[in-house]
Amino acid sequence: MTYCAAISVDTGVVLVSDSRTNAGVDQISTYSKMHKLISDGERMITLLSSGNLATSQAVVRTAARDVKNEANNNIKTLTSLADVAEYIADISRAEQKKYRAKTDDGFNPEASFILAGQIRGFEQQIFLVYPEGNYIRAAKRHPFLQIGEIKYGKPILDRIVEPQLDLQTAAQCALVSMDSTMRSNLSVGPPIELLVYEADSFKSGAYYNFSSDDEYLRALRDSWHGQLRDAFNRLPELPSHSTPMRIIDGSTDQ
Amino acid sequence: MTYCAAISVDTGVVLVSDSRTNAGVDQISTYSKMHKLISDGERMITLLSSGNLATSQAVVRTAARDVKNEANNNIKTLTSLADVAEYIADISRAEQKKYRAKTDDGFNPEASFILAGQIRGFEQQIFLVYPEGNYIRAAKRHPFLQIGEIKYGKPILDRIVEPQLDLQTAAQCALVSMDSTMRSNLSVGPPIELLVYEADSFKSGAYYNFSSDDEYLRALRDSWHGQLRDAFNRLPELPSHSTPMRIIDGSTDQ
Repeated sequence: MTYCAAISVDTGVVLVSDSRTNAGVDQISTYSKMHKLISDGERMITLLSSGNLATSQAVVRTAARDVKNEANNNIKTLTSLADVAEYIADISRAEQKKYRAKTDDGFNPEASFILAGQIRGFEQQIFLVYPEGNYIRAAKRHPFLQIGEIKYGKPILDRIVEPQLDLQTAAQCALVSMDSTMRSNLSVGPPIELLVYEADSFKSGAYYNFSSDDEYLRALRDSWHGQLRDAFNRLPELPSHSTPMRIIDGSTDQ
Repeated sequence: MTYCAAISVDTGVVLVSDSRTNAGVDQISTYSKMHKLISDGERMITLLSSGNLATSQAVVRTAARDVKNEANNNIKTLTSLADVAEYIADISRAEQKKYRAKTDDGFNPEASFILAGQIRGFEQQIFLVYPEGNYIRAAKRHPFLQIGEIKYGKPILDRIVEPQLDLQTAAQCALVSMDSTMRSNLSVGPPIELLVYEADSFKSGAYYNFSSDDEYLRALRDSWHGQLRDAFNRLPELPSHSTPMRIIDGSTDQ
């Protein structure tokens, strides 16, 4: 399983991804799911991938080759980030089609992508590219996207993320969302990659690769954990007056 | 969709359930999913249900009728809570079988149950009864069970619930877990029912039925929301030193 998330706030974009891949519990490996496609001072484009590892790698490989071969359409020449999303979707679909034709025994070549970045002259953007090849932009009010095992880490994003959030808090929120997911699902695991891109910088931004015993990640986790426990002490007490409850034989409580 | 959870701590049991049922977004209704089967000073047994509403209602109706008809096996005569779990499972399976035989067009008569309570002479217990009829007890270290849309509300239970937790905090934790689920999934909705049972009381315990505009629920939600936001201000700052990130063409960041 995989968990990747992208948060786009007014001042920049935060990307987070885990590194665990598995094909059954006895075939667990570590692969990066965060791929920086380009960062040349004019455009910064990064891809997060979830799903079939062969498909994901083929997409990244093809994108790199198209730049090298100076293909008509490549991540350096495409005008907008939406065009890049369409381009990535086309490669992904073509790659999946090859293998879907070959086997039909439960094997699943599908992959999902989050495309994030900025091209000079445009705003920063984040897109989710579905396995089918269609894609969406994040909503204005809840400007985040997730792929993979998304449910455990969604509540904290739902509660906290808004366009006005500062970049530092957005990054911490992404890490807390990842930590919640890892605690609840063993198939999502470290190292955790984090990229913090400042809007209009067109530079790479700050990149972190946190191992499982990383000191900062542990401090963050401990602080969050302690604060959640403390928060319960400050929640309002349950009302002292409760209501009678009907029992199924029709009587009510004493 | 549905969300129900049971938490068993040293001093008692907390049950929470939503009340939304739907068969498509234009067929939304409100039904209680918390059924107090018995509470007579000798035993307190309550059932939470998820899945097919007809199956759930049939199980509760049959349990009530068996008591009235003084059937050999009923919730008043069965020795242990595990026996009650087996009994509920048998009714559920029989009920499902009737309808599975009749149709096969995507219609799903499956239902899951959480059985919670205490019989004099025994400890309090919580069981999860699967649609297939098998059942489990909660783990000692993470003594909670969930049915329905379980993922959004699981992280907070994973982080907080332990046997030593006081009953008040367990109840607040159940409500926060429910609130997280409702925020992230529109098909889980109020009224929210909450039952707080004190161990060895063999009485009904405190029952609450919170409507969507309930004052306490809103105060709890606001307090939790505010404290989460504050918690981010106290988290350790990201390290100032980040690592270089490889770009897919093989170069690294400036």
